[in-house]
Amino acid sequence: MTDLLTSALQPRSVAIIGASDNIHKIGGRPIYYMQRHGYQGAVYPINPAREEIQGHKSYASLAALPEVPDLALVVVGGDKTVAAVEECAARGVKSAVVIASGFGETGPEGLELQRHMVARARAAGMRLYGPNTQGLANFGSGAIAGFSTMFIEVPPQDGPIGIVSQSGGMSAMAYGLLRGRGLGVRHVHATGNEADVTVGELACAVAHDPEVRLLLLYLESIAHPEMLAAAAAHARERDLPIIAIKAGRSAGGQKAASSHTGSLANEDRTVDAFFRHHGIWRVRDPHEQARAAQAYLKGWRPEGRRIVVISNSGASCVMGADAAEDNGLALAELSRETQAAVASKLPGFATASNPIDITAALLSNSGLFGDVLPAVAQDPAADLFFINIPVAGAGYDVQAFARDAAAFEAATGKPVAVAAWQESVAGPFRDQGIATFPNEGEALGVLAQVAGHTALMRRPRAAWPALPAVRLPAGARGFLNEADSLALLARHGVPTAPMRLCRSAQEAREAFDAIGAPAVVKACSAEVPHKSEHGLVALGVQTREQAGELFERFDARMAAMGVARDGVIVAATRKGRHEFMVGARIDPVFGPVVVVGDGGKNVEALKDCAVLLPPFSQDEVAQALRTLRIAPLLDGVRGDPPLDVQALADIAVTVGTVIAGARGTIASVDLNPVMVGAAGDGAVVVDALVECAPAPAGGSY
Amino acid sequence: MTDLLTSALQPRSVAIIGASDNIHKIGGRPIYYMQRHGYQGAVYPINPAREEIQGHKSYASLAALPEVPDLALVVVGGDKTVAAVEECAARGVKSAVVIASGFGETGPEGLELQRHMVARARAAGMRLYGPNTQGLANFGSGAIAGFSTMFIEVPPQDGPIGIVSQSGGMSAMAYGLLRGRGLGVRHVHATGNEADVTVGELACAVAHDPEVRLLLLYLESIAHPEMLAAAAAHARERDLPIIAIKAGRSAGGQKAASSHTGSLANEDRTVDAFFRHHGIWRVRDPHEQARAAQAYLKGWRPEGRRIVVISNSGASCVMGADAAEDNGLALAELSRETQAAVASKLPGFATASNPIDITAALLSNSGLFGDVLPAVAQDPAADLFFINIPVAGAGYDVQAFARDAAAFEAATGKPVAVAAWQESVAGPFRDQGIATFPNEGEALGVLAQVAGHTALMRRPRAAWPALPAVRLPAGARGFLNEADSLALLARHGVPTAPMRLCRSAQEAREAFDAIGAPAVVKACSAEVPHKSEHGLVALGVQTREQAGELFERFDARMAAMGVARDGVIVAATRKGRHEFMVGARIDPVFGPVVVVGDGGKNVEALKDCAVLLPPFSQDEVAQALRTLRIAPLLDGVRGDPPLDVQALADIAVTVGTVIAGARGTIASVDLNPVMVGAAGDGAVVVDALVECAPAPAGGSY
Repeated sequence: MTDLLTSALQPRSVAIIGASDNIHKIGGRPIYYMQRHGYQGAVYPINPAREEIQGHKSYASLAALPEVPDLALVVVGGDKTVAAVEECAARGVKSAVVIASGFGETGPEGLELQRHMVARARAAGMRLYGPNTQGLANFGSGAIAGFSTMFIEVPPQDGPIGIVSQSGGMSAMAYGLLRGRGLGVRHVHATGNEADVTVGELACAVAHDPEVRLLLLYLESIAHPEMLAAAAAHARERDLPIIAIKAGRSAGGQKAASSHTGSLANEDRTVDAFFRHHGIWRVRDPHEQARAAQAYLKGWRPEGRRIVVISNSGASCVMGADAAEDNGLALAELSRETQAAVASKLPGFATASNPIDITAALLSNSGLFGDVLPAVAQDPAADLFFINIPVAGAGYDVQAFARDAAAFEAATGKPVAVAAWQESVAGPFRDQGIATFPNEGEALGVLAQVAGHTALMRRPRAAWPALPAVRLPAGARGFLNEADSLALLARHGVPTAPMRLCRSAQEAREAFDAIGAPAVVKACSAEVPHKSEHGLVALGVQTREQAGELFERFDARMAAMGVARDGVIVAATRKGRHEFMVGARIDPVFGPVVVVGDGGKNVEALKDCAVLLPPFSQDEVAQALRTLRIAPLLDGVRGDPPLDVQALADIAVTVGTVIAGARGTIASVDLNPVMVGAAGDGAVVVDALVECAPAPAGGSY
Repeated sequence: MTDLLTSALQPRSVAIIGASDNIHKIGGRPIYYMQRHGYQGAVYPINPAREEIQGHKSYASLAALPEVPDLALVVVGGDKTVAAVEECAARGVKSAVVIASGFGETGPEGLELQRHMVARARAAGMRLYGPNTQGLANFGSGAIAGFSTMFIEVPPQDGPIGIVSQSGGMSAMAYGLLRGRGLGVRHVHATGNEADVTVGELACAVAHDPEVRLLLLYLESIAHPEMLAAAAAHARERDLPIIAIKAGRSAGGQKAASSHTGSLANEDRTVDAFFRHHGIWRVRDPHEQARAAQAYLKGWRPEGRRIVVISNSGASCVMGADAAEDNGLALAELSRETQAAVASKLPGFATASNPIDITAALLSNSGLFGDVLPAVAQDPAADLFFINIPVAGAGYDVQAFARDAAAFEAATGKPVAVAAWQESVAGPFRDQGIATFPNEGEALGVLAQVAGHTALMRRPRAAWPALPAVRLPAGARGFLNEADSLALLARHGVPTAPMRLCRSAQEAREAFDAIGAPAVVKACSAEVPHKSEHGLVALGVQTREQAGELFERFDARMAAMGVARDGVIVAATRKGRHEFMVGARIDPVFGPVVVVGDGGKNVEALKDCAVLLPPFSQDEVAQALRTLRIAPLLDGVRGDPPLDVQALADIAVTVGTVIAGARGTIASVDLNPVMVGAAGDGAVVVDALVECAPAPAGGSY
């Protein structure tokens, strides 16, 4: 655990400023919880109106304590909150948890107060949790600096799961759902407004707890991704899966998040890319976190996505197959031997291919599961198993089914999930430790999640190459013109169409002679980024005279528009089989971001693109391209050859290194279209726009 | 209820062929169930080995009965099944339910036996249910000609829901889930292999039961859509919602369905279109059917999709807003007055805009719900209400919250859904009759479903216009060539680009003179439907000489290819702002089907299209276009004007009447591209391909 946070998660002493004898008050709960969960350190209630609180001596003030506590829990509200924090800082308290609301989430005035508290804390080397938080709870150490009602509703039990959440409500909900599934939870921490300590930093601390085998996060904004990245890196090293909710996916949700924890909006596709980049699996709500937990704790790390579906209902075979496809799982193709072995166990009208319908004959032969499962167990085509029991009851030996399934799972070591909505059926399977779900959608969703997450965590991770030294033209600001943009990219190895920037009609004619027909002639002005909308692009230019005339016409038009006349470009025509786009920008939170997708003039409207955070490999670009709606075109349609994905991927990787190498001087890069040819024919950029950062900074990422 | 099926659903007498004294055997269950559920007709067990069965006199044979029973339940298997059905038919039994498996679902031999049974039944005017079925159950009349174990597991209660299913397992599962929610169910019918009576026909019968207020279907194939359409039409008339599962959505699922009930595959997008066309809502599984049932039974028919989200947790406000967007619901914009009224009830740091965060202050003020709800009740901006309570417990007066919510729902008459995963919270809300769900995804999913389904059921329904008399050229077969295809469509009012079919270079030059530059020149051969792949299309032809030369070149190339040389087309160039496609085909099950979507050469690969069943209105086409991935282009991008959706919709409507008017002589129509201009500029078809039906039939749809 990181040393800085030890004082909060494993404090030797805890002061409660505003302590109460009533265990249902915020100032009473933590004392009650610490007693109940065996906290071994010193507990110091502070309340000048009392001699004793819940069996502990009560103190009049922080100054009256016999020692400086590691952790102070500030329960008092209003003006007293800031005063208490100031006193903690002055006394040398290591960590303070501030419960009160009414700070950054309410507007500028509250934010100012919040900043003031943090400034005082930082100046004294004290860490601050909250404000506007439900607090911290470590059931390993018994240090419960929080007041969640849920710990009364659902009795805690120490276990291998850590929860770190901006929202107290969501930490309590995840905790309650996990406990309801019989799973133990060690850490339940809420960060509230994150004035100082963020989910990322606490996640880092919890990921270092060797007892934790699954880490669940809830975030409303990501302000400091580097801590979260560090947590994820450490988690991957020790094979600790992280499942995160990032709420505020929608515009309405982001607005609500701003009122809730004063959160700033993140661009949601970039959040997705960030999580993918760091091997974090994203879900929508605590239900999705809780329902997958048991599967992770079993240590399932499937090799692939090929599934065998088994049911006693033909309809459930059908729906299981449908749900497998919904979840991107493939039905395993069982070998001829496996099918023969299965068929020998089943009645004649049953189906021995996958999905395997053992039919209602299960009613008369309770041994069917036990007969059929071993027959498929050894087939190497199967990565995952799913047993769907939509109907059973009187006459069915469900206990035997459950024992057979458990023996099967133990023998294969492969994931086995069961769907059964009747408690009389689900219960016996659960009792055998089988991952059991109410329906095929959830069961297959979890299997697909574990398979996908395993692949994500194990994916080879690209390292930053030596970054190029990217220099903008002297005095550049705003947009570079097209010629400068293309030249900059070409310098760093991006393939661009041959072109010349011409300053006169004569130069245009000479350029045409050098470049040949058909040529493209286009005006070049940093002030006209969208040339074609102004009629400043001519395609298919066939003669040197045309080139000269176009120079005159475009030059005159730029003059009439009153924009910078940087010249006229004469360029070679380059066609591909499809137009793509590659873009890059500096995200204010996440730094360099690369976008690759369908190109052309409708990019903004259709948004068929994938987001990647550098560094990434060519393979990752190729995988990302597979998520596009135009992905079927990559393989070639109607007899066309496949596209040169490798060449496009090279460009995307290079653009990532260029924007990173610019070290803050480039705000964005937009290559559109990138003409991609058939495999082996390469890709070439025919238009580019580089945007300089407003105030060039010297930082790096 | 349709008379034909009355003998099965309300029989005056029931014979059980293969009756048993053991209530856990298939031949014992129905007798037990009929006694238990007060069946008033005569029950005739047939079993030659017994004198009495479950208190009824047992008969040696059908012939020995004192009367011909309305309904015979055939429980005997193997060879005896067919013999029993033959005897029933011979004796004049009105309906027979055949339980045994081993017929159409096993292959050609079983299918032959099945056909034989149906033929005998039909010849005698007897209706057949099954084979391979779990049977029928009407808890209104007590006539239970089925053996589902689920009726023992979960005690029946008559109620307003009907279930009709191909699968016995799925009917039992839907039944069990509904009963588990405390809802009463009247009809639970399974059709199995549907040798004679289908889900559609039974649905029609059940839709005529005036007590039924919600109808749930499970289908693995739709062989006779007209019965289902009739059921849906009657249901719409009496405002009876139908929620259907059509399993076998995936290739794997369709294969499994074929093994299960011998089902033939339906094209899944056409199934979607069929359901939409008839106002049937499609879901994936019985859980989705059951979870929405209460909302329908409340009679919710919301006017719109604008929702108010209220929670005691800021995070749940955020996630509620996200889930609203996931489900296509809009956050209602509350009036200034409403917000002021809400704000006056809440603590200062709470949020009075939508979503409304009443905060953890609810803990100290249990009246907050009751205070806030009336403040929003009268805002006309709200169609739907959602209360999200992720955490409550000791100290919260949940009973009061539930009472306040129920009073609110009663006062507004508008849908109110609650999400609460803690049983201690959900219970009191459920007890007040509030629709309560475990999480925001399900709650908002159901609200969105009811809103969407209401709109679908209430949508004005297009009527067939007088169909045109569509005549193919004499002797036409296979594909018509492009000129004939375009001419046929133009005759029926589809706008096509001006063109001439030329038989000589001289004709081509004259055509160019008439049509003007730039022209398009393309080879015309019924045997070369994809001309451009063979280099047989020239765009931008500028001179009459070029047109003549192209004639010679294309004619020579067709000769070299050895294909029919129907001539060379000289056509006017027509451009639009976007290329669309309109297609039509005769589906073997559903009849005429129209497809409209993104055009160009990648249509097959990208499949960005919508399916419509005629007759449909221009408005329905416009709505369907909104579901395309390219929908954002309809409004115009980057300053472009919106597209002429009306003109495109006109073409789609016309194509639907043309293929219907062809009365089976046209197999398919493919218009691609259809050039669509800016609003008011129209749309024009520049290429067309009409395919003749293999053996022209004279039928109509």
